[in-house]
Amino acid sequence: MADEIKRIDRKLAYKGAVINVYQDTMQFADGHTAQWDFIHHDGAAAVLPVLPDGRILMVRQYRPALDRYTLEIPAGKLDDPKEAGIVCASRELEEESGYRCDHLEPLLVLRTTVAFCNERIEVFAARELTSSRQHLDADESIDLVPCTLAELKEKIFAGEIEDSKTVAAILAYAVKYGAK
Amino acid sequence: MADEIKRIDRKLAYKGAVINVYQDTMQFADGHTAQWDFIHHDGAAAVLPVLPDGRILMVRQYRPALDRYTLEIPAGKLDDPKEAGIVCASRELEEESGYRCDHLEPLLVLRTTVAFCNERIEVFAARELTSSRQHLDADESIDLVPCTLAELKEKIFAGEIEDSKTVAAILAYAVKYGAK
Repeated sequence: MADEIKRIDRKLAYKGAVINVYQDTMQFADGHTAQWDFIHHDGAAAVLPVLPDGRILMVRQYRPALDRYTLEIPAGKLDDPKEAGIVCASRELEEESGYRCDHLEPLLVLRTTVAFCNERIEVFAARELTSSRQHLDADESIDLVPCTLAELKEKIFAGEIEDSKTVAAILAYAVKYGAK
Repeated sequence: MADEIKRIDRKLAYKGAVINVYQDTMQFADGHTAQWDFIHHDGAAAVLPVLPDGRILMVRQYRPALDRYTLEIPAGKLDDPKEAGIVCASRELEEESGYRCDHLEPLLVLRTTVAFCNERIEVFAARELTSSRQHLDADESIDLVPCTLAELKEKIFAGEIEDSKTVAAILAYAVKYGAK
């Protein structure tokens, strides 16, 4: 750990459904201490599904944390902290989109919000899709919305798509593959 | 709120330093209920500082949530939930980088992790920098690292830069301004 800042205590403050919340006591180089928040998340995976015509298959779903619908790429948390990201991404792709892909390509690794949380998302590109069947979790209600990359870039720069993994994945796809 | 899913209760579970954690009781269309996590964050702002030679001024800092150093764009939380993002971004730019910019350009709005948190980050591009003086908060220890866009893209695709606001901002700058 860094010399300037040291964690001297960690207490579990709340055990949630997908996160655990800790209160950390941090000590700084001059000796003073402060209480910092730390949120543990087991990790997640996401996938950018590219249809044969080049459109990207987005999912529209209700997000209670924002009290509104969002347009996102398919994603979900790991079944187990040790699950490989690619296995999770493959499952979420099939469950949410009804497509499979045997050649998921690693695109990005993201940390969603580093100031207080360790959530890590592995993001893959799925460029060779084959039809399967959508089968959602009991708590999921999801609409599929195919969009062109041009439409998605417009929505990002207009502030209509804000989800960080989705913004990063779409822009990474545009930059890495030179896609228009 | 969506028909398929309804919040029927919200309890404050933990009051943290920068977040508040709530336990929500959600009810689904078939009547069953589930406990979901909700984390309230007051919001933040970030800025991508472009030096006159085209390099981007990154900050290297220790992040206890990851137990390691990260390379990020300057950012910080709003002083008050009602503070304008551009005011916060301008302050964080000067404090962390020692540069000022009188013409911050809106680049992105991000939600860091929409499944359980409402944190919102307004991201600006700062392309006309003038020298000022770095003045860090007591708890901050930050090194400045100027990087070319090519170096940053390489680090993103090599998984060396993972912070979602930073990845999204750099790629957005490359796409929006056609920067190489």
